[in-house]
Amino acid sequence: MSGSVRVGVVGTGMIGQDHIRRITQVLSGADVTAVTDLSADLAQQVAAGLKDATVHATGQDVIGNENVDAVLVTSWGPTHEEYVLAGIAAGKPVFCEKPLATTQRACRNIIDAEVAAGRRLVQVGFMRRYDDAYRGLKNVIEAGTIGAPLMYYSGHRNPGVPDSYTTDMAIVDTAVHDFDVARWLLAEEFTGVQVLAPRRNRHGGDLQDPLLMILETTSGVLVSVETSVNIRYGYDIRGEVVGEDGTAALADRGQVVLRRGGTASGAVPQDWRERFIDAYDSELQDWINAVSAGAGATGPSSWDGYAAQVVCDAAVDALHSGERVAVDLIEKPAIYAGGQHP
Amino acid sequence: MSGSVRVGVVGTGMIGQDHIRRITQVLSGADVTAVTDLSADLAQQVAAGLKDATVHATGQDVIGNENVDAVLVTSWGPTHEEYVLAGIAAGKPVFCEKPLATTQRACRNIIDAEVAAGRRLVQVGFMRRYDDAYRGLKNVIEAGTIGAPLMYYSGHRNPGVPDSYTTDMAIVDTAVHDFDVARWLLAEEFTGVQVLAPRRNRHGGDLQDPLLMILETTSGVLVSVETSVNIRYGYDIRGEVVGEDGTAALADRGQVVLRRGGTASGAVPQDWRERFIDAYDSELQDWINAVSAGAGATGPSSWDGYAAQVVCDAAVDALHSGERVAVDLIEKPAIYAGGQHP
Amino acid sequence: MSGSVRVGVVGTGMIGQDHIRRITQVLSGADVTAVTDLSADLAQQVAAGLKDATVHATGQDVIGNENVDAVLVTSWGPTHEEYVLAGIAAGKPVFCEKPLATTQRACRNIIDAEVAAGRRLVQVGFMRRYDDAYRGLKNVIEAGTIGAPLMYYSGHRNPGVPDSYTTDMAIVDTAVHDFDVARWLLAEEFTGVQVLAPRRNRHGGDLQDPLLMILETTSGVLVSVETSVNIRYGYDIRGEVVGEDGTAALADRGQVVLRRGGTASGAVPQDWRERFIDAYDSELQDWINAVSAGAGATGPSSWDGYAAQVVCDAAVDALHSGERVAVDLIEKPAIYAGGQHP
Amino acid sequence: MSGSVRVGVVGTGMIGQDHIRRITQVLSGADVTAVTDLSADLAQQVAAGLKDATVHATGQDVIGNENVDAVLVTSWGPTHEEYVLAGIAAGKPVFCEKPLATTQRACRNIIDAEVAAGRRLVQVGFMRRYDDAYRGLKNVIEAGTIGAPLMYYSGHRNPGVPDSYTTDMAIVDTAVHDFDVARWLLAEEFTGVQVLAPRRNRHGGDLQDPLLMILETTSGVLVSVETSVNIRYGYDIRGEVVGEDGTAALADRGQVVLRRGGTASGAVPQDWRERFIDAYDSELQDWINAVSAGAGATGPSSWDGYAAQVVCDAAVDALHSGERVAVDLIEKPAIYAGGQHP
Ligand SMILES: [Mg+2]
Ligand SMILES: [Mg+2]
Ligand SMILES: [Mg+2]
Ligand SMILES: [Mg+2]
Repeated sequence: MSGSVRVGVVGTGMIGQDHIRRITQVLSGADVTAVTDLSADLAQQVAAGLKDATVHATGQDVIGNENVDAVLVTSWGPTHEEYVLAGIAAGKPVFCEKPLATTQRACRNIIDAEVAAGRRLVQVGFMRRYDDAYRGLKNVIEAGTIGAPLMYYSGHRNPGVPDSYTTDMAIVDTAVHDFDVARWLLAEEFTGVQVLAPRRNRHGGDLQDPLLMILETTSGVLVSVETSVNIRYGYDIRGEVVGEDGTAALADRGQVVLRRGGTASGAVPQDWRERFIDAYDSELQDWINAVSAGAGATGPSSWDGYAAQVVCDAAVDALHSGERVAVDLIEKPAIYAGGQHP
Repeated sequence: MSGSVRVGVVGTGMIGQDHIRRITQVLSGADVTAVTDLSADLAQQVAAGLKDATVHATGQDVIGNENVDAVLVTSWGPTHEEYVLAGIAAGKPVFCEKPLATTQRACRNIIDAEVAAGRRLVQVGFMRRYDDAYRGLKNVIEAGTIGAPLMYYSGHRNPGVPDSYTTDMAIVDTAVHDFDVARWLLAEEFTGVQVLAPRRNRHGGDLQDPLLMILETTSGVLVSVETSVNIRYGYDIRGEVVGEDGTAALADRGQVVLRRGGTASGAVPQDWRERFIDAYDSELQDWINAVSAGAGATGPSSWDGYAAQVVCDAAVDALHSGERVAVDLIEKPAIYAGGQHP
Repeated sequence: MSGSVRVGVVGTGMIGQDHIRRITQVLSGADVTAVTDLSADLAQQVAAGLKDATVHATGQDVIGNENVDAVLVTSWGPTHEEYVLAGIAAGKPVFCEKPLATTQRACRNIIDAEVAAGRRLVQVGFMRRYDDAYRGLKNVIEAGTIGAPLMYYSGHRNPGVPDSYTTDMAIVDTAVHDFDVARWLLAEEFTGVQVLAPRRNRHGGDLQDPLLMILETTSGVLVSVETSVNIRYGYDIRGEVVGEDGTAALADRGQVVLRRGGTASGAVPQDWRERFIDAYDSELQDWINAVSAGAGATGPSSWDGYAAQVVCDAAVDALHSGERVAVDLIEKPAIYAGGQHP
Repeated sequence: MSGSVRVGVVGTGMIGQDHIRRITQVLSGADVTAVTDLSADLAQQVAAGLKDATVHATGQDVIGNENVDAVLVTSWGPTHEEYVLAGIAAGKPVFCEKPLATTQRACRNIIDAEVAAGRRLVQVGFMRRYDDAYRGLKNVIEAGTIGAPLMYYSGHRNPGVPDSYTTDMAIVDTAVHDFDVARWLLAEEFTGVQVLAPRRNRHGGDLQDPLLMILETTSGVLVSVETSVNIRYGYDIRGEVVGEDGTAALADRGQVVLRRGGTASGAVPQDWRERFIDAYDSELQDWINAVSAGAGATGPSSWDGYAAQVVCDAAVDALHSGERVAVDLIEKPAIYAGGQHP
């Protein structure tokens, strides 16, 4: 592809606008040329801040537009399937924010379409794989420095959540990132999950918060995922791999050590934007580069989106039943082989 | 009590000798005046290194000796019950290395004897409660700094174990310390336990190592205990309390930051002596002080020894059955009320 | 300015190429449209990798070219004065790699030209001011969190240097960054400097390495600068501000804590690219944004380049004389007032 | 020596009482048998809390008493010379709190007396040499892990000082510990010192606080000593050795990592008792053990007390003159050879 990648954006809500800002003000090699949103007013308003971006009535119009080389799907989750399938049908690369789709059936439809197309065209927005610290963890594992991984602790802590947040969302919106990054770090699929409910955090009202989920992988690695979404102190993403010879853990993030008032302290991030801003930049630049090089997609795949969905479904079942629930995946199509994306 | 506390030692093996060294060369206010061991030769040899210590044929002889004010039981675990009961019968304070006894029945016999005596005479060797870092954790919890505790992660890592070590020992010899310190930190009893077996560490041969145990307390706190006893990198005791408003964790122990060869590093302890040497000193000095003040015992109690035994039994059942096992305790006698020892 | 900023590059050596890569592959809002180099072959070769960039015989040709909106000076230091002056004369914004020029006289010529032009057009490449950790330090100081700064320790450590490196270069190439960042953090000028020569590092041969420089500022803050340029262990930039109520220091950079072989460790950066890659990106994006907004220049100024030169000259004198040398600056022109760039 | 060491205490003020508490309640192998103080009432009162300790009118009486095996000098500094000399004359081991004496002449008198006695009898209270973290630093240096030391940064920070504290005391009472520990770590003497006076801490009133002292050793190592005695945040003892291949630094002391309110923090000690309590215990136990073994003295020597005095005198001169002042020592008597005490 010569010249900048021309990106069409389906959905100009908060996350869509953030990606648009990224493409136009931060990253290199792409322009936003077409937008749409359920709210035509919002789409119009967003386009007004852009150079030469056209506004369209529907996602299909954006995807079909001749000035659009690649599609960014940042609409409401239940609509993802339709737009991703349309992108594949048009032979255009698609970056789809997580979730890939909201049901296993929908994810499998996307996989089927990609398999039929004969190559990967879809990247899912699991940005943690682009985070330097997680990449450091993965390097340690792959170098064999700590021997084979045997356990992985993943902590997902959030200072607070809106009233609309439900216990199921602690799994499908929050822990889904922990599930994906564990699959990627360990290069394995999950086989089962149980969900335990500790004493509740008083800040969460009726919410079952925190949750402690225990998952197993094919080789028997145990993965422990904690979601604490009202923990006030910060947005803190913890991770520790326990291997045969040692462990590797995400370090604290403070860049400055402040000694004052009896303590030596470092800052904890306050929200996901702060914590993962570089990873968001990096995942989208990687996608632009892949599209620009004609590669279709190289980052987290539809398979990753599907596998995450299956684990989430099992975890929700486990939460409600109190039992261990098996994680059963279909056979992995060959186009996803090798599979350690990115 | 005027003058030094005169201590009789029952069992002069490795741990007995270490406590004798402590009393005679490190601590203040006590002397060793009588010893015995299954091996008369060993007892004789140990006594030869002491000033005015007599050697006796049996533990009963030591306990009954008029030159003995208080008894240190460091014999083989199955004999603890007999000597602790003898100490109580003689009205003499007893410091008993863990385990208090090897069966729930034996622990209850000791409790019954103490209750009959009308006051505490027994301290159990759960030395972690005297460790400065654990005390720091407890202070944070009790100050309410992080709100109510909701979860507690306890990691017990050992570089290696002898061939004689069995998977059950990972519970009764190793995790027992995590169980006790969790009970103490949280000021609660456990109600159930399940034991999960991850992929095995290749260094452990047939041993099921590591183990991941999940316990619940009365108020619903979830406690996650990891034993990794062949992890090579060091003797590393991890602990993190997750509260409603924040967390508190044991810090790394390195006293020197070495910057060399591309890394900034601190040392990890290499064995339990190194890690807990101050705690061992502190627990025994505390006992000497209590005995000297006529207090009988103020540290970890027979009740703590009993409760640990019940949790261990349940965990062993859970390991073998693969099921959650309930933890059922008898009613707590009044003499153990208040119960946050020390 | 509508559309991308068209940048002309004078000097396509290593640092020039790195900035070109940055503009074309990483950052947003600029293109490289013209290049030149002392080596016409090299210029040609670099241009071949670009889209629509013309090659020119001289820096003056690049600067005068109608397709060039702004100039990047990355040529050999002694030529900086000529090209920066040409840029100012053409009314075009100039980003000049440090040093601004190699003599105080040359720096003052640039200041005079900018003053005559009536506004700032020049940004100097002191990238540390764009580093997140240094910005964190500055935020702490400005918030008054540690009271007034009283001392500042600045450590500049390098694993090794080429044979061509001289002791003077430890001042003019290495410590110059420490001088600038100290001026910026403290928002003050220096008034004097002495240079002390400790025992030599055996890895440095005849080089006087390390050096310890002690500087004073107008208000009396003492600044201690260490250069250790053969210290093998890593590229480690240390900084600690000692205030009236506390201190603030740059934290260690490790993103992963590795526990293995008896230590808990984090990685130390291995070179300046790794350590400051984000700062380089950020300074140039900031310049592009300023140019795009018609602001001329908002980052480190010609004044900053001049002040650094005066301090370096004084430090070199102090090194050779063994005496404290005063730092004397001309009066600061009004266009540099406010002066905390960025 | 069979039995407990019988210690006579000259001076029962705060530090004397603390050592008495240590001997009677914490350490092993010694008893306090005789005391004296300028205030007979205070001496009487302290003795009342002891078992079988006699009260005497003068230090000479204590030293000469037949129930005293060894002497602890904790009286007012200017009286140290007299009592230490009396101890040596009586052939009894002496532990003397720092300073050994308050003039170089007095220190030399003590050295002369010890040399005449033919063996060491005096230990000076430089307790930092018994601190685990400092010992860790020394081990790194001696193992050659970081190559030859080239610089040493020593920071001595105190939350506050009483009104009676003078700028000279920042040298003779505070920095003297940094001087001694640097001599010990580097196994070298100092050759010169300069004292720089930064901007003053507003909390210190007229006090020149902080101070920055730069010292050189025989081999050319530069030692930088900061005293900040009103820095509020804590009692923080910093130390970093810069070697040819790396650095070694005292680590932060926090035993618990608290994550709360946007930060991850550890506690900083609040006073010297908290920071060095273990070192105080360890130095005195070491002395008791040496005395008990008939060794006279093995810890910090009269030579160390003398050398510290010479450096302090030079530093006070340097403070008042603003010039570098040479440090000139007499020749070191053979009985102090080997000299890395302890
Ligand atoms: Mg762009
Ligand atoms: Mg004793
Ligand atoms: Mg660009
Ligand atoms: Mg004693």
